[in-house]
Amino acid sequence: LKISSLASAIGARAVSGTAVLADHEVHAGAALDAATEGAVAFYADARYQGALETTGASAVVVDETTLEALGDRPFARLVHPNPAAAFARVLEVLHPEPAAEAGVHASAVVEAGAEVDPSASVMAQAFVGAGARVGARTRLHPGAYVGPGAVVGADCVLGPRSVVAAGCVLGDRVRLQPVAVVGSDGFGYALDTDEDGTPMHRKIPQVGIVRVEDDVEIGACACIDRATTGETVVGRGTKIDNLVQVGHNSTIGPLSILCGQVGLAGTSRIGTGVILAGQVGVAGHLEVGDGAKVGAQSGIGGDVPPGATVSGSPAIPHRVWLRAALAFKEIPEILKRVRRLEKKVGGD
Amino acid sequence: LKISSLASAIGARAVSGTAVLADHEVHAGAALDAATEGAVAFYADARYQGALETTGASAVVVDETTLEALGDRPFARLVHPNPAAAFARVLEVLHPEPAAEAGVHASAVVEAGAEVDPSASVMAQAFVGAGARVGARTRLHPGAYVGPGAVVGADCVLGPRSVVAAGCVLGDRVRLQPVAVVGSDGFGYALDTDEDGTPMHRKIPQVGIVRVEDDVEIGACACIDRATTGETVVGRGTKIDNLVQVGHNSTIGPLSILCGQVGLAGTSRIGTGVILAGQVGVAGHLEVGDGAKVGAQSGIGGDVPPGATVSGSPAIPHRVWLRAALAFKEIPEILKRVRRLEKKVGGD
Amino acid sequence: LKISSLASAIGARAVSGTAVLADHEVHAGAALDAATEGAVAFYADARYQGALETTGASAVVVDETTLEALGDRPFARLVHPNPAAAFARVLEVLHPEPAAEAGVHASAVVEAGAEVDPSASVMAQAFVGAGARVGARTRLHPGAYVGPGAVVGADCVLGPRSVVAAGCVLGDRVRLQPVAVVGSDGFGYALDTDEDGTPMHRKIPQVGIVRVEDDVEIGACACIDRATTGETVVGRGTKIDNLVQVGHNSTIGPLSILCGQVGLAGTSRIGTGVILAGQVGVAGHLEVGDGAKVGAQSGIGGDVPPGATVSGSPAIPHRVWLRAALAFKEIPEILKRVRRLEKKVGGD
Repeated sequence: LKISSLASAIGARAVSGTAVLADHEVHAGAALDAATEGAVAFYADARYQGALETTGASAVVVDETTLEALGDRPFARLVHPNPAAAFARVLEVLHPEPAAEAGVHASAVVEAGAEVDPSASVMAQAFVGAGARVGARTRLHPGAYVGPGAVVGADCVLGPRSVVAAGCVLGDRVRLQPVAVVGSDGFGYALDTDEDGTPMHRKIPQVGIVRVEDDVEIGACACIDRATTGETVVGRGTKIDNLVQVGHNSTIGPLSILCGQVGLAGTSRIGTGVILAGQVGVAGHLEVGDGAKVGAQSGIGGDVPPGATVSGSPAIPHRVWLRAALAFKEIPEILKRVRRLEKKVGGD
Repeated sequence: LKISSLASAIGARAVSGTAVLADHEVHAGAALDAATEGAVAFYADARYQGALETTGASAVVVDETTLEALGDRPFARLVHPNPAAAFARVLEVLHPEPAAEAGVHASAVVEAGAEVDPSASVMAQAFVGAGARVGARTRLHPGAYVGPGAVVGADCVLGPRSVVAAGCVLGDRVRLQPVAVVGSDGFGYALDTDEDGTPMHRKIPQVGIVRVEDDVEIGACACIDRATTGETVVGRGTKIDNLVQVGHNSTIGPLSILCGQVGLAGTSRIGTGVILAGQVGVAGHLEVGDGAKVGAQSGIGGDVPPGATVSGSPAIPHRVWLRAALAFKEIPEILKRVRRLEKKVGGD
Repeated sequence: LKISSLASAIGARAVSGTAVLADHEVHAGAALDAATEGAVAFYADARYQGALETTGASAVVVDETTLEALGDRPFARLVHPNPAAAFARVLEVLHPEPAAEAGVHASAVVEAGAEVDPSASVMAQAFVGAGARVGARTRLHPGAYVGPGAVVGADCVLGPRSVVAAGCVLGDRVRLQPVAVVGSDGFGYALDTDEDGTPMHRKIPQVGIVRVEDDVEIGACACIDRATTGETVVGRGTKIDNLVQVGHNSTIGPLSILCGQVGLAGTSRIGTGVILAGQVGVAGHLEVGDGAKVGAQSGIGGDVPPGATVSGSPAIPHRVWLRAALAFKEIPEILKRVRRLEKKVGGD
């Protein structure tokens, strides 16, 4: 593809470099430091200034400010106000997802009463249960499972061995990575005794569902529990990374980001545009307000106000935590100094 | 179902409300705040007093104390000493699990020498290996895997794409959520050198099994490693949440609760009725005594005595941890005050 | 098998005990404290001295030093400089992995254009995509998935329901535990707006691959994300435990150990022979130097120098952390003592 054509496709402006002109052809996306002839990279972070100097890319996506500062460079430029987003488009154009044949593979199982749109692809070994619905152009990769009565919208991608359990509902353009699990039972038990008076944990049947709204992505081996009754909701445009646990009856988003290995206990309420960094834990029945940011490995033990940035376990305002965390190693020294003072002063 | 009949079914006493009489019909369970006409809710926690005032439920499960304090309310009451457990029964009655047809689906694979009880359901794409046994009324959901020589008891439910690896043993009424993994290899290597003298981690073959006792439930993407030799044991009535890691040769329970994303290193000994909250980690070869409770995200680096409640990483008694955790943010301020004192007193 | 023959097979020297002679037969490996007649155990750690005194094993693997100190004991000895590694060989010999029939099971799906070595086993319900290659003697257990264009080397074992996604590359002797996931998409989004100006997270297509080198093992439900562009690399002989998350474009090893539930954010650079204990988190774009060791639950927020041992969140040198962690509980008491001093001295 010519750089100029790529520019049109992604809504950027093509500018020739000293060596590479705008009608040069490119064929792949790459990072600045790995890019070679024919590759397109992007620049959006001053940490990569060095890589920008030496890149072998044929074209680089930059913003106007960078363009002006660039001076003579061999590579062509694709000028766009949001280079990272434009690079996402570059990758879409140069590395299109392989087409999937519409229809149901001979080794797939579609139970009676299921409705699969004729434009959908139900690949090898996939399963669609009785009464389930699969929307237009949706792709069920090999071994994907759509349980009885579940509903999957249009243009979804269900990765290999992913699971949408019975009755759960996915909107449009939802992506499940391999082995993502939507609709496992919530973890609910009532302390009880059996007929002999022996204590037991009586399972509370989990009869609700998970509702996943449009444009959500759910990572590999992430588990979204169905509600005890009612719905667990993953709101529009929310992105959930691998190995995340979402407890029953939680509501998340829209547009929130849950990084790898985050865990939400039951009935968590995560607002709009929230960012939970990796391995964060949220205790049950709490609210994390709109736009809040939570640092990696933090433990949320109380409500977090909208817009707050918190860290630590239990979490406190990030800046307070940062100072305390840096001073943490001084505790033994402080103790020594207090003892010394007490000796001098005659502490009782 | 009439409220009075439901009461009989769950061992409760039906009491008419001002608007809803005991012969009114109900059809679903719901939370107090979401319940509408025809729904049954329960009340067992003073935090939900407000929801109890305004609920649209046709019937509410309450205990005698609540009943007496209730006064005039439209809804009928189901009176039971343990409302949460009684509500579990309500859900069982109003939302029965769909019946599963006995027999082996055409797309399932049952290897020669496997014994599947005729009353069991081996659904689409499930697998039962050579020499394995599947007990009466047990349901293997689509894609469930029972490895060669594995034994699954009666009345078990193996969720979609769950795995019981070769030789492992499940008791009766065991439930595996989707993609639960029983019998992955333990993580054991011996530092060694190969023929060239290059260092290597030599795999220690993991030739033991996992034994899961009766009434255990194991969550989605939870991984229970088989023993190096001998058995990893999950004791009777223990409940394990999603994404939990159980290292080889551990023994757990009976009746313990491991919340989401807990990790046990190898040879952990977790007693009876222990509660490990979310994301707790337990180092190898340690004992957590009967009835101990461990707070979320704690790190267990030493034995925990029976009945103890501990928190923190490394874990200390919960009340000590709580005070220290609250004071944590003061460290920088303490340091300042110590410096000030030293100036006054003439430190060292 | 005779103890003497076992000794030859594993490169050890057989020495008769007072009751068990070197031509006695053994049939299984076991732990010292569980071993009975016919079992072989090993001793390499003084914590198990007591078990060594009372073991019922017919033979025990020991080193020369232990042999000399042993005195009269009933069991035969297998003398080897590295008892743990020798015991690994004992288990290999006494508990060989069951042979797998070469060929493709009738229920497996091998797409057109895939190349499966005739000596490989593609078991029931496994999947090999178009253009993929499966090497000699490699075993795909039931339901294993090898995506289009993926390459799996020789002598690999892909556990039940494990996933090697499209285009990813495995070397020789790689082992995937059940439901290991190689090649899920990296978690990459660019903040953008849609046509209406509504904010959205635009997916950055993840068009790179994962390359897994020889002799790597990857645990159950561990997730290795493919690179945005280029490669995520798991280096030779690295061992990754269950439920570990490896972010896109990371490079690990060779010969590193990632324990259960470790999480690496994107572009982590983990050196040679590194050990990350359970539940460690590593923030993005950081380097952990060769031979570094990181304590359980630590949070790595900056580069770790080669050979360092660090702990804590954020991580600091382990010994510093240990002293501070022990003193942590004293913070409230320190605060009290500072107040007392201030009263005495007249702190303002």
